[in-house]
Amino acid sequence: MKVNGTHYRSLWWDEDKDALQIIDQRWLPHEFRVQQVNTLQDFADAIVEMRVRGAPLIGATAAYGMALAAGSDPSDENLDKAWEYLDKTRPTAINLRWALNRCRAKLKALPEGDRAAAALQLAHEISDEDVDINYRIGQNGLEIIRRIAAGKPDGEPVRILTHCNAGWIATVDWGTATSPMYQAHDENIAIHVWVDETRPRNQGALTSWELGSHGIAHTYITDNAGGHLMQHGQVDLVITGTDRTTRRGDVCNKIGTYLKALAAKANDVPFYVALPSPTIDWTVEDGVAEIPIEERLEREVTHVQGLTEDGRIGQVQVTPHGTPGGNPAFDVTPNHLVTGLITERGVCEASADGLAGLFPDLAKVARSA
Amino acid sequence: MKVNGTHYRSLWWDEDKDALQIIDQRWLPHEFRVQQVNTLQDFADAIVEMRVRGAPLIGATAAYGMALAAGSDPSDENLDKAWEYLDKTRPTAINLRWALNRCRAKLKALPEGDRAAAALQLAHEISDEDVDINYRIGQNGLEIIRRIAAGKPDGEPVRILTHCNAGWIATVDWGTATSPMYQAHDENIAIHVWVDETRPRNQGALTSWELGSHGIAHTYITDNAGGHLMQHGQVDLVITGTDRTTRRGDVCNKIGTYLKALAAKANDVPFYVALPSPTIDWTVEDGVAEIPIEERLEREVTHVQGLTEDGRIGQVQVTPHGTPGGNPAFDVTPNHLVTGLITERGVCEASADGLAGLFPDLAKVARSA
Repeated sequence: MKVNGTHYRSLWWDEDKDALQIIDQRWLPHEFRVQQVNTLQDFADAIVEMRVRGAPLIGATAAYGMALAAGSDPSDENLDKAWEYLDKTRPTAINLRWALNRCRAKLKALPEGDRAAAALQLAHEISDEDVDINYRIGQNGLEIIRRIAAGKPDGEPVRILTHCNAGWIATVDWGTATSPMYQAHDENIAIHVWVDETRPRNQGALTSWELGSHGIAHTYITDNAGGHLMQHGQVDLVITGTDRTTRRGDVCNKIGTYLKALAAKANDVPFYVALPSPTIDWTVEDGVAEIPIEERLEREVTHVQGLTEDGRIGQVQVTPHGTPGGNPAFDVTPNHLVTGLITERGVCEASADGLAGLFPDLAKVARSA
Repeated sequence: MKVNGTHYRSLWWDEDKDALQIIDQRWLPHEFRVQQVNTLQDFADAIVEMRVRGAPLIGATAAYGMALAAGSDPSDENLDKAWEYLDKTRPTAINLRWALNRCRAKLKALPEGDRAAAALQLAHEISDEDVDINYRIGQNGLEIIRRIAAGKPDGEPVRILTHCNAGWIATVDWGTATSPMYQAHDENIAIHVWVDETRPRNQGALTSWELGSHGIAHTYITDNAGGHLMQHGQVDLVITGTDRTTRRGDVCNKIGTYLKALAAKANDVPFYVALPSPTIDWTVEDGVAEIPIEERLEREVTHVQGLTEDGRIGQVQVTPHGTPGGNPAFDVTPNHLVTGLITERGVCEASADGLAGLFPDLAKVARSA
């Protein structure tokens, strides 16, 4: 999508420098900084420190990490080492492991001498696939927005609530949850987006930045406000992304998603989750019981980052000195709270049958594994 | 309660200075500043700017405001003027109007010459009553905590989640939601409090400050985390305060309370609301439809206040320049999500029968009004 009129992807390969470029998202929305990723340590840092973030983008980044490893030492041993090293950077998003597995399996099947070039080619492919998948998610989600728009009085926007940033900068392009929004906007359907702040890291500010850059009307709200808005008929639908979806459609996503799903259910607001198929973990059934939830640093909770009064990027400490902070980064929304899953192949019920119906090929491989 | 070993109320009358002293809560938890309130404008500013906050404390403050007005000009006309002026400072908390009505009615029944002294006396009484009421709320809530503690393995704390600050600084002393916690702690019942941050104004930092000062174990969490914690059995009960409760037990409280009530219901976690009877609005039945919800400044949402890196109290801007912010300050939790109301007269069901059973005198007056 565009930043000040220039089209960007959230990562890209610079042929001249022979290196991956990322947007260092820690400085957004206040500064747009590009960083070159040179070493495997750089890759791990970029993921752990959330310079890159969002399940699909983490997957694509990890693929380039494997390409870097294959370029320096294409042996099985080194590929395993890189796999291990990158796999432990974030425990919850499944795309990370999906990309690592895909790269390792493909590369190990090749002679060592072919691996470096193939690895880079594969990373490019994974990135391009992500763009294509997200475009299709947008097309499928657009149908839902179109349907709701058709039932509204002329000129009244479709009001969509979203949590966290499942935007283009959380993917290679388009975003997942935002892809239907961008496509609706481009088709001149009036929409208005309620953007959840998404403490502790305020990814809502990233979503506001994206939507604002694209000219989409939106309002930034605290994570506390969505239930009240739904109760008062101010939300027509919710669309979020997901970091991992189980084979029965339980949705693991940014902490707080579950609360919005409960409110949506209680107020008959449709609650959709947009996801590319690599986000489905076919090995997991019960998301609440089985998905490991990353516990992040206390400081993300006790401090808030933003633009200081003198225009720098800085932090303020919100709590008294020494206050202990708890920071579970994700939660799980059980499938019965989810109206539908918006995938690249269509929209399905959040259930084992729903997912297997759209992805019989993937479901079958998982069953036989 | 105590601040650095000294016992404070959240407001007090200084006989030497013949003036009300308040704690200017905008600087807490980072600085403890006391302010003298001299003019009616000071009173209004203190309430609007949330130097004093919390329904019971707003009520007590307003009573002193009426005393100031009666001291300068005890005429009916001036009392009406002061009533109007103070009434419009905050629209949601009912204690404000309750205190204003009580003062005006009592004073108008007296000869003008007696009003100044009576008004001050009445403000003292309202403050003392608040302390007494909150102590009783604590005794009644303590029973609930005792019961839960009795069913737990030895040494495992009762884990209580609370939202916003319904602590001693939101009242004259003891707090409402916190009063059972202080009394449980003082009785050596092991408790641990999950403190919701409560964006946009982060009153959770006030609660952390209070609990920390009193030596009560607690963890500061984002508003997003509570659902996940309940889903994983980490919360034994929720206790919140309320700014206005309808005669059928709908609970209007700080924005986000409703989301926690939904999560509590979904996970079979008891959800209690602690309230002094002046918080009951006997004239209102349906809280969602009838209670006006204050919409506060955007800046509270787009900016966050805290301690800067160089030790000052400052703000950071979280959102991109120009992002619109929505800031509804309260929401309403329907009575069917509330396990029980903890009042000064006991614990009752959140229903018209429940409240009328405990307060037949007040319910009757309201019916006949």
